[in-house]
Amino acid sequence: MDQNIYFLEAKERALNLLDKAKSKNKVDNGIEQILFLINKSDKFYTSSSCAGRIVLIELPKIGDKRGANFLGRWHRPIKHNELELAAKKGKNGMLWLLAQSPILHIAAETNNAADKLLKIAISCGFKNSGLKSIIGRIIIEICSTERLDAPIGKNGLLFCDEEFLNLLVDISNEIINRSSYKLQRFKQELKNI
Amino acid sequence: MDQNIYFLEAKERALNLLDKAKSKNKVDNGIEQILFLINKSDKFYTSSSCAGRIVLIELPKIGDKRGANFLGRWHRPIKHNELELAAKKGKNGMLWLLAQSPILHIAAETNNAADKLLKIAISCGFKNSGLKSIIGRIIIEICSTERLDAPIGKNGLLFCDEEFLNLLVDISNEIINRSSYKLQRFKQELKNI
Repeated sequence: MDQNIYFLEAKERALNLLDKAKSKNKVDNGIEQILFLINKSDKFYTSSSCAGRIVLIELPKIGDKRGANFLGRWHRPIKHNELELAAKKGKNGMLWLLAQSPILHIAAETNNAADKLLKIAISCGFKNSGLKSIIGRIIIEICSTERLDAPIGKNGLLFCDEEFLNLLVDISNEIINRSSYKLQRFKQELKNI
Repeated sequence: MDQNIYFLEAKERALNLLDKAKSKNKVDNGIEQILFLINKSDKFYTSSSCAGRIVLIELPKIGDKRGANFLGRWHRPIKHNELELAAKKGKNGMLWLLAQSPILHIAAETNNAADKLLKIAISCGFKNSGLKSIIGRIIIEICSTERLDAPIGKNGLLFCDEEFLNLLVDISNEIINRSSYKLQRFKQELKNI
């Protein structure tokens, strides 16, 4: 069995999982067409994706993602009062407001194909993209540099006043809007791969 | 001329630039031994590096790095009053406090060597690492996930009170300390490449 057959089998499994995720509404709307365009190509398949999001999280320790408690999660621009409402659910730990740009993991059949797609992604503004593995499976991670990682309170209490919270919401929303713009550019470029 | 000669010539140029940077004290102390161990191997050379830092920056727009004005830059844990003093130099734009974990760019001779070093880096906690190019030059970027990107004021005025600033300084210092620990682990592993 050569590399190509392994790749095709893995692609079939990944597409089955994607179909299941779609049927449970677990695929972000903003990214579905991009997944379609990538999976249409013989050279690639997608293994995971997020269209970008704003998250309010309660974290016992810096970087301790396993202990994280999600208090709010939005794949769109948010309003100030949505953040305050979510923060009230906090109990124990540091409250962080995160705005995260899109992230996609894509498997490629060959190094040439991976390098080409990586360079397209970087040219569309996804400057934090890179290959995570090239021996065995070839995995491309596509992501951007804009993000917000701000501590805003502790044990359910906010540190900051309304003006500051408004500013953080504005910045988070700008990150989401810029992400949408980059995804649009990327979608255009994907029509030619 | 084959690939290997291109690689050796590029390595020679890179090491010359590194020597010049060292003579101007432009190489971070915390990372010099790591650069030495990587460059000792025939398969790799380093092209740029930062040992991790805390930065106070004035930014006209999100992501507009070219317009950025650096008000403070520290490659070590800082004290609360150092941040306040630096912030007073701000004039025009949003003040952001950034704590950045180490970043290294390394060229590899072969894909196998690149993949191996990438996996070592990830196993030492540099989970945001990836290959930036594998056709033409093979470039590994080594970096971590911990970071702080917090807006703390505007046009030279701080939004936040002393307690909040202290918290941000504590978090930034923890990121620097965790970075040092990961660099130590990575240095140990590099002894065997």
